[in-house]
Amino acid sequence: MAAPFTDLDGFRKLLAAAPGPVPEAAAAARARDGMLTKPPGSLGRLEELAIWYAGWRGDARPRLVAPQILIFAGNHGVTAQGVSAFPAEVTAQMVGNFASGGAAINQLARQFGATLGVHALSLETPTADFTVAPAMSAAELVAALQTGWEAVDPGADLLVTGEMGIGNTTVAAALACALFGGDATEWVGRGTGVDNAGLARKAAAVTAGVARHAAVLGDPLEVLRCLGGRELAAMAGAIAAARALRIPVILDGFICCAAAAVLDRAMPGALDHCVAGHLSAEGAHGRLLEALGKVPLLDLGLRLGEGSGAALAIGVLQGAVACHSGMATFGEAGVSAG
Amino acid sequence: MAAPFTDLDGFRKLLAAAPGPVPEAAAAARARDGMLTKPPGSLGRLEELAIWYAGWRGDARPRLVAPQILIFAGNHGVTAQGVSAFPAEVTAQMVGNFASGGAAINQLARQFGATLGVHALSLETPTADFTVAPAMSAAELVAALQTGWEAVDPGADLLVTGEMGIGNTTVAAALACALFGGDATEWVGRGTGVDNAGLARKAAAVTAGVARHAAVLGDPLEVLRCLGGRELAAMAGAIAAARALRIPVILDGFICCAAAAVLDRAMPGALDHCVAGHLSAEGAHGRLLEALGKVPLLDLGLRLGEGSGAALAIGVLQGAVACHSGMATFGEAGVSAG
Repeated sequence: MAAPFTDLDGFRKLLAAAPGPVPEAAAAARARDGMLTKPPGSLGRLEELAIWYAGWRGDARPRLVAPQILIFAGNHGVTAQGVSAFPAEVTAQMVGNFASGGAAINQLARQFGATLGVHALSLETPTADFTVAPAMSAAELVAALQTGWEAVDPGADLLVTGEMGIGNTTVAAALACALFGGDATEWVGRGTGVDNAGLARKAAAVTAGVARHAAVLGDPLEVLRCLGGRELAAMAGAIAAARALRIPVILDGFICCAAAAVLDRAMPGALDHCVAGHLSAEGAHGRLLEALGKVPLLDLGLRLGEGSGAALAIGVLQGAVACHSGMATFGEAGVSAG
Repeated sequence: MAAPFTDLDGFRKLLAAAPGPVPEAAAAARARDGMLTKPPGSLGRLEELAIWYAGWRGDARPRLVAPQILIFAGNHGVTAQGVSAFPAEVTAQMVGNFASGGAAINQLARQFGATLGVHALSLETPTADFTVAPAMSAAELVAALQTGWEAVDPGADLLVTGEMGIGNTTVAAALACALFGGDATEWVGRGTGVDNAGLARKAAAVTAGVARHAAVLGDPLEVLRCLGGRELAAMAGAIAAARALRIPVILDGFICCAAAAVLDRAMPGALDHCVAGHLSAEGAHGRLLEALGKVPLLDLGLRLGEGSGAALAIGVLQGAVACHSGMATFGEAGVSAG
């Protein structure tokens, strides 16, 4: 669908006007949960997940049959600072791998019955190196937000956003550092596998970037423009679109959460329709999740990106919704309720 | 398939003769993992899971398409001690619920494409109250082990064993206490939801049972006979059969792991073909997993039984195998390996 905004102010207004869940549906789902053939609370987090999902879908007994995975790819001028173990060409090569079905996310999408959309954002024109200039112009940021917004299928009943972009753990660390404060060293990690020298270069780049753009730190969307990247902006746009459509979102790892954090800082509650899919092995993801108030569903040491951790968590949410909507009540089954 | 044993000694011999994984397949899977289009190690535990699965299946690029879930149900004389929040009739009522498709495990089986077999073991004849007599005769134990063994489909490529049996968290606590030592209070939990008085009755029953059967504590299979139950013995039989068939197993919660622990104590390494599906909220499950040297895949607060936590983890293993066997190598995809 065409994005209903043409500039950053329009996007801000949409964030402010975002709908909440349907309280009646959530209440009815909670009542249903209490009647299902199981000891109260014995499905643990699956119960809260199902009630949360029901609220956002406005349906006390929802189905989850049309998950959508979106991957956005971008390139980053900050790679000039030697922040990645892989060359920048790998971004485009991996987009080719997504197209031919050879990446991890292709397998996970098929396994969990999700559609997969891949959007490469101006790979031939990396963002500016944020240590020396704003990463994007306002027009570039809006275009990336629009790409993300427009990629969301209004018929989807769940969204996962993932990314590919050599250098983007550094970008995510810069965003997190700018949004939440602290020292750069607390936000950088080894990404695809940099050594100690690479890690030091990442921290130096983040420090330099945050210092250079100190004037915009109070405005999360300006932080995204100056320190972010196109694929992160597109993820933010997609997550915001999902909110407008009441489509629940499973957040992926560090980069996805850094993009989402921009929305959270711009508008408290902007991520109420999101759950954290997993805890990434990328150093600062746990810290970022804590800042967002999200408890991850999985903790399996993944640090691949591509939306892979969130995609794996689709199975958990599918299981939660299947139990909630498919189980018999004590009355229906003729089981004594204890 | 007909169980290849007619007495406990026969079962002991099968445990001792159990096959291991195929080292060539595991090595080839590890080599393949290193060539896939991802930074080394970036799929975290999924990589080790896939290699483990490949080894047991004897196939460096396996598929996981035929998971089997088996539920065994039994009744327990120890319920006379007031150890459950639910009446014993609920065991049979829940078996009816499994048959009509209304339980949590029915939904999870469908969600993850697993077959579901339900075996009720002499529900009308509970085991003896272990605080006053051995729970089972040798013939009853062997029959239950055989039921479990024979229920395993040789064409399955993954097994989950679950259970239903009012009172069986007390039985599992008695087994764990007998096998691993410690005070009964360290092994009992709230099960389906007993209050503090119920919890105290559980601890007292476990203490009494372990004391009464002190003479057999050195023999894990005799511990299973004196303190166990039919559905736990059937789970042990099924897990042993899976080993003989090189079918990997996902262990469920406290009760499943207590049954599996009998095999582990009877024959070191007997659970090498098993992974822990989840950490149950039932009090002592973490302690039991630690004793078994298993790290759970999920930690979502489930404590339902029925194999539900392990069933949910099928999705994780399916994702791991799908990535491993479906991804392109760097060479195939034309991606620079960093």
